Amino acid sequence: MTELLDQLRQVVGPTHVLTGADCARWDHDWTGAYSATPFAVVRPACTAEVSEVLRIAHASSTPVVPVSGNTGLAGGTYAKRAIMLSVDRMNAIREIRKDGRLAIVEAGVILANLHSAAAEHDLIFPLTFGARGSAMVGGFLSTNAGGSNVLRYGNTRDLCMGLEVVLADGRVMNLMSELHKDNSGLNLRHLMVGAEGTLGIITAAVLKLKPRPRAYATAMLAVPKLSDAVGLLNRIQDLTGGAVEAFEYMPRSYIEGHLREIAGARPPFEKMYDVNIMIEIGATAPRDADPLPDGSVPIVTLLEDTLARFLEDGTLEDAVIATNEAQRAEMWARREAAAEVVFARQPVVNNDICVPVDKVARFLDDAIARINAFDPGAEALCVAHLGDGNVHYTVYPSTADPALADRILETVEDVVQDLSGSFSAEHGIGLGKLTSMQRRKDPVALNVMHSIKAALDPKGILNPGKVFPPVDS
Amino acid sequence: MTELLDQLRQVVGPTHVLTGADCARWDHDWTGAYSATPFAVVRPACTAEVSEVLRIAHASSTPVVPVSGNTGLAGGTYAKRAIMLSVDRMNAIREIRKDGRLAIVEAGVILANLHSAAAEHDLIFPLTFGARGSAMVGGFLSTNAGGSNVLRYGNTRDLCMGLEVVLADGRVMNLMSELHKDNSGLNLRHLMVGAEGTLGIITAAVLKLKPRPRAYATAMLAVPKLSDAVGLLNRIQDLTGGAVEAFEYMPRSYIEGHLREIAGARPPFEKMYDVNIMIEIGATAPRDADPLPDGSVPIVTLLEDTLARFLEDGTLEDAVIATNEAQRAEMWARREAAAEVVFARQPVVNNDICVPVDKVARFLDDAIARINAFDPGAEALCVAHLGDGNVHYTVYPSTADPALADRILETVEDVVQDLSGSFSAEHGIGLGKLTSMQRRKDPVALNVMHSIKAALDPKGILNPGKVFPPVDS
Repeated sequence: MTELLDQLRQVVGPTHVLTGADCARWDHDWTGAYSATPFAVVRPACTAEVSEVLRIAHASSTPVVPVSGNTGLAGGTYAKRAIMLSVDRMNAIREIRKDGRLAIVEAGVILANLHSAAAEHDLIFPLTFGARGSAMVGGFLSTNAGGSNVLRYGNTRDLCMGLEVVLADGRVMNLMSELHKDNSGLNLRHLMVGAEGTLGIITAAVLKLKPRPRAYATAMLAVPKLSDAVGLLNRIQDLTGGAVEAFEYMPRSYIEGHLREIAGARPPFEKMYDVNIMIEIGATAPRDADPLPDGSVPIVTLLEDTLARFLEDGTLEDAVIATNEAQRAEMWARREAAAEVVFARQPVVNNDICVPVDKVARFLDDAIARINAFDPGAEALCVAHLGDGNVHYTVYPSTADPALADRILETVEDVVQDLSGSFSAEHGIGLGKLTSMQRRKDPVALNVMHSIKAALDPKGILNPGKVFPPVDS
Repeated sequence: MTELLDQLRQVVGPTHVLTGADCARWDHDWTGAYSATPFAVVRPACTAEVSEVLRIAHASSTPVVPVSGNTGLAGGTYAKRAIMLSVDRMNAIREIRKDGRLAIVEAGVILANLHSAAAEHDLIFPLTFGARGSAMVGGFLSTNAGGSNVLRYGNTRDLCMGLEVVLADGRVMNLMSELHKDNSGLNLRHLMVGAEGTLGIITAAVLKLKPRPRAYATAMLAVPKLSDAVGLLNRIQDLTGGAVEAFEYMPRSYIEGHLREIAGARPPFEKMYDVNIMIEIGATAPRDADPLPDGSVPIVTLLEDTLARFLEDGTLEDAVIATNEAQRAEMWARREAAAEVVFARQPVVNNDICVPVDKVARFLDDAIARINAFDPGAEALCVAHLGDGNVHYTVYPSTADPALADRILETVEDVVQDLSGSFSAEHGIGLGKLTSMQRRKDPVALNVMHSIKAALDPKGILNPGKVFPPVDS
């Protein structure tokens, strides 16, 4: 053990190998649900050092758990007795190319810093979520992070053009493509994105940048029936040429919970409605975004006119448009208070699921009906990225009974499976979803995943115990 | 052999196992460059039959080459002494869901038929290219086909939500997701797309549909310098909110070649210019696309105004907007005559390469300079999907010498590599690019690809000899 530490110190320098109490910053994840003391935290300065660390780990069959911002929600960085390889020192934004609309970044770049750097070129890196001040490139690529504007810009995977990956045995794989078309063999890049560090350690990436929206039109809508909401979204997409950035569903129970739990919270409408949706449209074109001489902004006028028509023909029950940035911020704050609203009550059974966009209403109807069949007192609360079918679905069982909680979880998974959905939408598998992975993933697909893992990491040293459920022998 | 044929006949029925002269339709590909008589052509009717055929092939270690429309350009369906598994009978469009904006299709559906079916729902499946009347789902997914509007809609891979794949041993892998977010383990779907049938046989897919553009604005532009063209594209993207569908570069030599080779061809402008670009903008929003009372179409007016400004400030030397469908068709016909224009002259060294969008001009300058250093008489001709960096680059050597041709090919590859480009943009590897794959692909990536191939197809029966260059032993 001392010998191994000495080898690591020789590679990265003694101050960058931390043990014992010095690991405190890394010995627990953001959720607090997973904590363990690693063998050591090692902080390489460059790809060559990552490669050397992995060569050493591989030779001694020592597990290696990569970590960057450590803001994941599935226990993906649990590192008991493992080398925790932190990429936080590899934090250079190597290049931003305005014409090429791309950024070349190292794995330790913090998401918010990339946002700032892109803004200097009047561009955006669209991925964003609550933890953007801590989350880093390596982590959001390894988990294929989602967030609140996948509807318009896609997942992290869709925003990644190239990667550099260090493999289990220390070899460096150069996939740093800056290309929109590249059919040269198997697509290893998309395999590495979302692999949660089990196939290799991402050290650098080429990321797509997009034009910055110059104006937003944001509104709260009350819709008579949730099942009609996707049709409404499609109509607004057609009217705006696909400029909808967010389409967030909040049921009456969420609005009530928000009023109850959050100091100073205000209701979206004078009346209470069952189906509340926050919509945001982003306009990049000047003719949509630039104010006219009378001060009106065309994209906002378009939304106003559209909503007025929809109110008249009964498509909407009510609508409020944000007329200034404070009102827009209030709408977003209501949506982003979800964690506080949801976890104010206990016990909870929590889910991050996805169903086809046109089946969200059916999922919500079916799930609570099937749960109430065995637990009539159970109640459900949700918020949903309705535009991409991702539902954060919380159930409050009538009692705090682990067997009941598991039955509820399985029932939710049953309904998801019946609707061809996924038990894991955007948070990944890590340790937290291993059981669901075992019982719900197509067994052939699971077997293929195991084969690929065995082929690329035969000693099983990369983030062991995560993603792949144990194989029955 | 007779026993094997009997087994296959039992699975798919005797009329659907073809041998000898009955294989004529399948014994050569569209290019004519690759022809060979297969052991038999087997035409299963459903996934279960594909599975059975593969079980039989696997048990007897017989190679299997999947084929659908057979319009590939890289020899990917060469099937000497192999079972050629044709999916052409599996041609059902199972479902089109307008609200969910998706199509569920079998592998034998012809692209043009999918276009028609989507149009009935006022939607499009955006992928399109010359061979759309023959190309099928299985083939365009297996090759990750590109085409002329990747700029707006992405490659085939970006348009695929789910897959069903039969593995080498006959197991059926169900990845038929209809989801926009699904982080449940390794991304096997994107691995199978573009694998050219070497890892499994695609039998069905879930594909994304998009709103149909209601109007187009199409123009020919003359730009002073090619290196400024990407900046121009970005400005027009900003002005239109990202609605550019095509941005096609044709140099003076191409315009001249077109006039020479194509009967009735007309020049795009009264004067000849060095840098000619065809741009097309698609408008889906009614306020952009619907004619005003005076008959003008807003998206066309926007392009007119923009081009007028660019002519005034010197950004453009000349511009012509199509004022009717016939003029638009003439612009497209000029671009789509590329094969005829390029191959009218011999000998040729032909390339399908991709470089970063902001490096196309440098590629063109560097490539011909380095070729002329050893072959001063050589001339180059290109057309390029400039919006995505994909250049169809043809060199006419001064003499028909294979060694010279290979030196030119290697020089082009050198320049591509220096600019972080790819030797294969959209046509894939097949047999035709194996040498380039061997000498240009990152060796670690190549080794990882071999490992995955060995893990998923240990007997090597799936499309053997394609994609993966032979390993030195």
